[in-house]
Amino acid sequence: MRFFEDLNLGEQITLGDYVFEQDEIINFAQKYDPLSFHTDVEAAKSSLYGALVASGWHTASVWMKLMVNYYKNAIQEMQNAGIQHGEIGPSPGFTDMVWVAPVYAGDRLTYTSRILEKIDSKSKPEWGIVRHYNEATKEDGTIAFKFTGTVFYKRRPT
Amino acid sequence: MRFFEDLNLGEQITLGDYVFEQDEIINFAQKYDPLSFHTDVEAAKSSLYGALVASGWHTASVWMKLMVNYYKNAIQEMQNAGIQHGEIGPSPGFTDMVWVAPVYAGDRLTYTSRILEKIDSKSKPEWGIVRHYNEATKEDGTIAFKFTGTVFYKRRPT
Repeated sequence: MRFFEDLNLGEQITLGDYVFEQDEIINFAQKYDPLSFHTDVEAAKSSLYGALVASGWHTASVWMKLMVNYYKNAIQEMQNAGIQHGEIGPSPGFTDMVWVAPVYAGDRLTYTSRILEKIDSKSKPEWGIVRHYNEATKEDGTIAFKFTGTVFYKRRPT
Repeated sequence: MRFFEDLNLGEQITLGDYVFEQDEIINFAQKYDPLSFHTDVEAAKSSLYGALVASGWHTASVWMKLMVNYYKNAIQEMQNAGIQHGEIGPSPGFTDMVWVAPVYAGDRLTYTSRILEKIDSKSKPEWGIVRHYNEATKEDGTIAFKFTGTVFYKRRPT
């Protein structure tokens, strides 16, 4: 969890990976995306996907989960080492969010994030804005989900 | 649930409204967005939001929930009336997703969707693509969340 000044363009981190278990796919979808190819194993077999698939919002929410855990761990490690750490703030927004390939029960996705651009913030001088490209890939390398996001990143205190 | 041919540019529908209860905000965030201003009422008081706020992915997932329910009801009504109904397919993607204002516990959001553009699909001749603009507004009219999406829409069978 470094400061805005310490980030390099093109840098890529792996946020983590996640297995989409059948029960969690169904549980998420019953609450937020109750289409039968997300909630019903039998009905999904005759859908255009041929089997149960995760809701796209589930795939997106897991990105957030892994991102938060990644930065919590990074902050903890820096605190343990007595190093001054940065902070991330709210996200101004996301764009170009594409669910490229279906995520089936049992699929393991690996989420990565790459720094595309660093932008000075006019409204918040103590923060910078980082534009980042994110991908979730299956074990065979297929991209399942991608988007570009922006986030506020704390500058090093002067 | 009409066919692609029957949709008009500029048409707006209200998908529904939803109250973000404290328990559900915490429950969603514990699973997918475990930052303390989403999971801990006391800690949230000293955050930049001043109180517990819903995860942005929660706000987005509720859009999907209301959208699915809206179209399920529309299909049911047309079936009951013996009218031939259309179908929506997968979404090629979403863009310009912005969380404009925080959503606090107890806030009621109303979600609307407006048709921006109708596009012929080159790869799927029996479907058209609809580009739609979506907003979730609070009871005082403040926009909390917005994005532009695309979705495949079944054409009328010939």
